Amino acid sequence: MGKIPNNSCAIARSLEVLGGRWTFLILREASTGSSRFSEFRSGLGVAPDVLTERLNTLVENGVMQKVPYREPGERARFSYALTDAGRELLVVLLGLQQWGDKHLPWPDGPSFLRQVEGTGRPVHIGFIDDSGNEVDERSVALVPTVAHPRLK
Amino acid sequence: MGKIPNNSCAIARSLEVLGGRWTFLILREASTGSSRFSEFRSGLGVAPDVLTERLNTLVENGVMQKVPYREPGERARFSYALTDAGRELLVVLLGLQQWGDKHLPWPDGPSFLRQVEGTGRPVHIGFIDDSGNEVDERSVALVPTVAHPRLK
Repeated sequence: MGKIPNNSCAIARSLEVLGGRWTFLILREASTGSSRFSEFRSGLGVAPDVLTERLNTLVENGVMQKVPYREPGERARFSYALTDAGRELLVVLLGLQQWGDKHLPWPDGPSFLRQVEGTGRPVHIGFIDDSGNEVDERSVALVPTVAHPRLK
Repeated sequence: MGKIPNNSCAIARSLEVLGGRWTFLILREASTGSSRFSEFRSGLGVAPDVLTERLNTLVENGVMQKVPYREPGERARFSYALTDAGRELLVVLLGLQQWGDKHLPWPDGPSFLRQVEGTGRPVHIGFIDDSGNEVDERSVALVPTVAHPRLK
């Protein structure tokens, strides 16, 4: 894990690591099967130096890990896989997807459906309380703690 | 609503509108009570020209709306309030918070707790199927549709 960003706000810390459009799109590619540098490059059309820098940042911060592989007759290389922490970002990524499909709709409709594997039931992203019940967004309260700078 | 970004991926379209760290932090401030330009400025320490540009982008894209107000003896001004679409981004914002508090922890602990208003029960962000049951992240499948460029 890299150095934890110096900010008491967890949203700001996450954005220090994930900041920037390319990072979320790299995570999208990794979530839909890309693992090799060439796959990320062709999936995103991103400049190689930007891609290298973003992948390194994600590895340093424990979001992705390097996995060695070697094709017959070629030198050893690395592919990139999501860590457990990286997979936990799926909820953020699919939250962006859900919002974009609703509020910035595409003429042909959504390019991906979110489903429960096996049953095919549709899945959405939302708020859940500790007894497993969905909570309406208007009932979610953000309560500042003693760790909040305004209360220090 | 502004022009919808020209990309079949809903994640990419959302990021065109929301892209950049400041935008998410403006939404954080709006979700915790800021509405005036001066409040966003002092809460974020952002340069005024950047703040103006980001607020305008959010208004153009239907995430925030301008609300006129006038202090006694002063000229009419505008404050900025989240629209319904803007409030629906709370799930993304608090997804980033949840992830940052877990994977990039702050020594003093979380600066905000997510609770159900009234009951105080803790709230997390997750996946929910159409019968209201929480779905484990490993059971969520992304199924490409005919709108996906690779299937055209």
